[in-house]
Amino acid sequence: MLDGLLCPNAVAVIGASRSPGKVGYAILSNLIKSGYAGKIIPVNPKVNSILNLPCYKNVSEAKIKVDLCIVVVPPPAVMKALESAAAAGAEAVTIITAGFKEVDAAGADHEKKIALYCRKHRMRLLGPNCLGLINTANNMNASFAAQMPKPGSISVLSQSGALCTAILDWSEGRGVGLAKLISIGNKADLSETDLLQALAQDDQTKVIVAYLESISSGPEFIRIAEEVSLTKPLVILKAGTTAAGGKAASSHTGSLAGADIAYGAAFKRAGVVRSENFESLFDFATALSMQPLPKGKRVAIITNAGGPGIMAADAVETLGMELEAPTPEIAQDIMSNLPAAASVGNPIDVLGDAAPDRYAMALEKILADPKVDAVVVILTPQAMSDPDATAEAIIKASTGEKPVLACFMGGSQIINARAKFVAANVPDYPSPERAVAALKAMVDYASWLNRPPRIVTRFPVNRHRVERILSRQARTGRPEIGEVEAKEILRAYDFNVLPGQLARSSDDAIAIADRIGYPVVMKIVSPDILHKSEFGGVKLNLSKSSEVRDAYDLMILRISRKAPSAKLRGVLVEKMGASGREVILGMHRDPQFGPMLMFGLGGIFVEVMKDVSFYLAPLTHSEAIQMLENTRSYALLRGARGEAGVDLNVIASALQQISQLVTDFPQIEEMDINPFIVGEIGTQPVVADARMILSGE
Amino acid sequence: MLDGLLCPNAVAVIGASRSPGKVGYAILSNLIKSGYAGKIIPVNPKVNSILNLPCYKNVSEAKIKVDLCIVVVPPPAVMKALESAAAAGAEAVTIITAGFKEVDAAGADHEKKIALYCRKHRMRLLGPNCLGLINTANNMNASFAAQMPKPGSISVLSQSGALCTAILDWSEGRGVGLAKLISIGNKADLSETDLLQALAQDDQTKVIVAYLESISSGPEFIRIAEEVSLTKPLVILKAGTTAAGGKAASSHTGSLAGADIAYGAAFKRAGVVRSENFESLFDFATALSMQPLPKGKRVAIITNAGGPGIMAADAVETLGMELEAPTPEIAQDIMSNLPAAASVGNPIDVLGDAAPDRYAMALEKILADPKVDAVVVILTPQAMSDPDATAEAIIKASTGEKPVLACFMGGSQIINARAKFVAANVPDYPSPERAVAALKAMVDYASWLNRPPRIVTRFPVNRHRVERILSRQARTGRPEIGEVEAKEILRAYDFNVLPGQLARSSDDAIAIADRIGYPVVMKIVSPDILHKSEFGGVKLNLSKSSEVRDAYDLMILRISRKAPSAKLRGVLVEKMGASGREVILGMHRDPQFGPMLMFGLGGIFVEVMKDVSFYLAPLTHSEAIQMLENTRSYALLRGARGEAGVDLNVIASALQQISQLVTDFPQIEEMDINPFIVGEIGTQPVVADARMILSGE
Repeated sequence: MLDGLLCPNAVAVIGASRSPGKVGYAILSNLIKSGYAGKIIPVNPKVNSILNLPCYKNVSEAKIKVDLCIVVVPPPAVMKALESAAAAGAEAVTIITAGFKEVDAAGADHEKKIALYCRKHRMRLLGPNCLGLINTANNMNASFAAQMPKPGSISVLSQSGALCTAILDWSEGRGVGLAKLISIGNKADLSETDLLQALAQDDQTKVIVAYLESISSGPEFIRIAEEVSLTKPLVILKAGTTAAGGKAASSHTGSLAGADIAYGAAFKRAGVVRSENFESLFDFATALSMQPLPKGKRVAIITNAGGPGIMAADAVETLGMELEAPTPEIAQDIMSNLPAAASVGNPIDVLGDAAPDRYAMALEKILADPKVDAVVVILTPQAMSDPDATAEAIIKASTGEKPVLACFMGGSQIINARAKFVAANVPDYPSPERAVAALKAMVDYASWLNRPPRIVTRFPVNRHRVERILSRQARTGRPEIGEVEAKEILRAYDFNVLPGQLARSSDDAIAIADRIGYPVVMKIVSPDILHKSEFGGVKLNLSKSSEVRDAYDLMILRISRKAPSAKLRGVLVEKMGASGREVILGMHRDPQFGPMLMFGLGGIFVEVMKDVSFYLAPLTHSEAIQMLENTRSYALLRGARGEAGVDLNVIASALQQISQLVTDFPQIEEMDINPFIVGEIGTQPVVADARMILSGE
Repeated sequence: MLDGLLCPNAVAVIGASRSPGKVGYAILSNLIKSGYAGKIIPVNPKVNSILNLPCYKNVSEAKIKVDLCIVVVPPPAVMKALESAAAAGAEAVTIITAGFKEVDAAGADHEKKIALYCRKHRMRLLGPNCLGLINTANNMNASFAAQMPKPGSISVLSQSGALCTAILDWSEGRGVGLAKLISIGNKADLSETDLLQALAQDDQTKVIVAYLESISSGPEFIRIAEEVSLTKPLVILKAGTTAAGGKAASSHTGSLAGADIAYGAAFKRAGVVRSENFESLFDFATALSMQPLPKGKRVAIITNAGGPGIMAADAVETLGMELEAPTPEIAQDIMSNLPAAASVGNPIDVLGDAAPDRYAMALEKILADPKVDAVVVILTPQAMSDPDATAEAIIKASTGEKPVLACFMGGSQIINARAKFVAANVPDYPSPERAVAALKAMVDYASWLNRPPRIVTRFPVNRHRVERILSRQARTGRPEIGEVEAKEILRAYDFNVLPGQLARSSDDAIAIADRIGYPVVMKIVSPDILHKSEFGGVKLNLSKSSEVRDAYDLMILRISRKAPSAKLRGVLVEKMGASGREVILGMHRDPQFGPMLMFGLGGIFVEVMKDVSFYLAPLTHSEAIQMLENTRSYALLRGARGEAGVDLNVIASALQQISQLVTDFPQIEEMDINPFIVGEIGTQPVVADARMILSGE
């Protein structure tokens, strides 16, 4: 895939320059220096040769098929460069030139025209406004970054060209090779998903690392990222997470959702390994690219230093992995090979004077322990230590069946050992905490790979009925759907809504109450009143007709005083439901990732404690159950303080029904069922109140 | 302080050896190699000279006053070595030898004897089981670690000798100097607090870094650490935090408290900068030792790379600091010196082609902005970048009035720049997140230094009455103090407890109720029944005598069936209080740090959400208010969802009263007031239920 871009047989540099310091010189010179074996065609009408290569007036003049054209001419000359590329049969174009969408509206227009032209002529376009790309498999440095990494198994996608330079320099300093490095620029044509797909199919790439500030399409991103994650780990640092700046939202769900939560939900769905900072991006990627995945989360620690062993143990516990003591036979076997002062618990302390063979012995034996899934090996350079030989011993003892991560702490004395580790594909970290965090990323990815199959249940529903209600609503021009219609919609989607009807007079209210049976609940219905109870617009547990009449009259009186301009539709008289635990179920349509479902315990748990969980639709049963488990108040649902638990499955079903509803009807922008009342197992849950917001379109 | 240990005029090595590889050789050789100018006395009865120094049979034989004796002989010979040291007038002894407390009970005994001997002969003892110590001010490497750091302003205390070697190697690799490095070993005599005091008075030491696994005395630690923190920053990594392993606790407060929470509370009180991992220990220490403290938390970011600028901005927001845009004049001034494509918001993007002078210009101008308290300067090595000259420009532009932290990202291309930064006392970090985290540590320490004065209010109380109740209780031999007596105690400490009395018959109950007035509450009183309501042992809101009689009879009946063996003391008849918000106030006596107060909203907020906060006693008013603010449910107290807030000051006072009570009576091991009922401002709070546990002693 994208062979014309990644593995071209011939590359033209349109705007090649003879002046060192110019980008058009840097790219040409980098291509030559990196040892690219294909044909290199400098294009510049003003000169005859650059760097000993014949220079052409346009690409066609070279009279060969040029797969990739790199464009570095100023913005006004870009279109002409593209025409020259198209004429030479180019399959791909990389526009390095800046001055497009990132500058102003005119630039954005220009960029659109360029993308359109490329699409028309079937040239894939990388950029504009990018650093270029590097492929170590064919020795091609088609970027203006001077450093050419050595071949490796990590590929990098970056939305920041400047970050690429830091990554290349890190790669050189650390001795970690790269497969491909691609600066994606403004993404006028090729987006992160196109490139992710290409890297997923690339044989050299074992792990993909991406730095992203935005994504082009949420649903496509999730689909592709999940596809990619099934074949190889995808580690992403998403920057710009906190400055999300919540837009004013009118539902509870909307006010609690945010871009960062949506990215988190999308990454979780797609199996993306999320990195929260620059260092962990490569900490995780090196571990994932160098070592096999762990089968479980039981970690053994081998150390020649007590303190760092404790730090590692702290980190293992904090990150939710397990420190298990070795099986007694193995413990005894190791112990019999160690001095009496050593300790074989977990951590295994091989003592400060441990020679390489002692490390090798302990590592070999503990790797054979069926109770151990992964090993972290720690060394501090003490008087008797031989870091280099110890590194070699550790490398030799690693069988490749279980992950081994090293943590050699210090500076100058362990430089060589660190280089040996990198060369032998053993990841090495400067602190115990970073080694353990990398291991946790491996454990999480492995557990995602082994997740149960995603089966989305479809409930039998009355879709036509909802279509009718929504088109009736659309004619009113109001985006808010009030309680009465929201409940009609939910009833059509198999929710349990108590019998009730809108009363327009007190006699009407009594007649309805008599028919549905006492006790009843009465609620004011007005499109202008969102918080009914603040206006005295809710009365519960009315048990006879006189109470219904009083409630009706009082409500109308109060509203006419407190909100004289509110349009009144009447009063909803509804059968009083059984009591139970109040929860809130909601949906917020994220602009990027679409419908995001929310679950939380009602009232203060949502408003004050913000104890809610989100998941992207469509939702499976096990994901719905996870939503419940992921709240801090989960213990209350299960039953705490002597109270019986509620029926978790009916909440899970309700979340799945909402998932189906909002997938069927994309015009529903936000919704809250608040409260949704659930009782013990065997009881029917009830939608006590609900609201929806339709999108403007 | 501790001059004999830190700055001796003569040092003896008792157990000096001629065999390279032996500790007794390493120490002697290190002392010589490091350039120690004082007299060095090797002691070994079997040889005449070592490393060209005359060797002595015992210390006295040298016929000079030897301030420090380093002991490396095997454990059985240690006492004789000490006798020889004492005879020579030694002020201090460092015992490197291991095989004491850390091995077994006999070793612990031996260690005690040794410590006693030293105390008797007025010799301060470092160790045993330690690496020794290093003082760069007098070129003294009195340790068996081969590396001698260059002089610097950070001093290190470490309870792990092995970690010292990693720190020394890091120091060499990074070029960061150290003032003193002290391996504290088993702390038989000199503890962390003794050494902290000495380092606080040491002129070379600007920042103290400590790695601790335990502390010798909690109250002393807090007192000394606070004293030290007032003079210089103290950065501590406390390892072994998660494996705290809660002992079974019988109060709510006890079950929620833990060693890690206690350490957190102690560090907070004492102004300790807490580090959660090895890297941040020195990240924080270098920032604190190299740069002035910020006056506030408004951070400006200068960068030549968009992506890393966003990462830094994310980190600033996540850590609760502020990114403020520069004042318009300064923004315009900077802008007029930058290309049009640059952006002067925050981050200030000086663009990928920024030369050193552009950095210098932006930094100088932004440092002059009164809205900026600190600056983070980021560079990625791009084609036009000159990292070395840029580092020099940044160093020159730093005025020393506001902290400037650098983040040069990459590897090989920025090595020289990093070395320049270290040499010029500008801290430099490999990732934006680490730079920002170090700045946050500075902000927190500065804010602790500026905290309001700690004034502990003393409330007028009836201390004698509590003494009488407690001594009566002591005679029963039961550690649990039930509701009746706990309330008596609290009443004596100025708490509002509703009138009530213990009834022993139903007639008795009615008489009491008639006297105190209806409605009343009735509660079973039995030392064997902890959870009264589970036994049907609580009845609320009884409004007439017939209800009181029924309640009494029913309670006795139920208890006799459900808990026939429970010893019954009667039924407490109490005036029914006004309703209000239920909160829980508690105290747990931490074995290290003494009384720790707890606050939380009642019921599920404590049991399920674990939404509580802790603070060490004695407590000031502002600390008590902070305890309320530090719970997630604080908004509920202030008044949320249209409900009125409660009187925060009465809760704060109650916490202070508990603080006074548990300080006055150390035999109170744990207590809960649960619930404590608070109403709106102006209403009186009520102790609705309370329990205490006395210590075994």
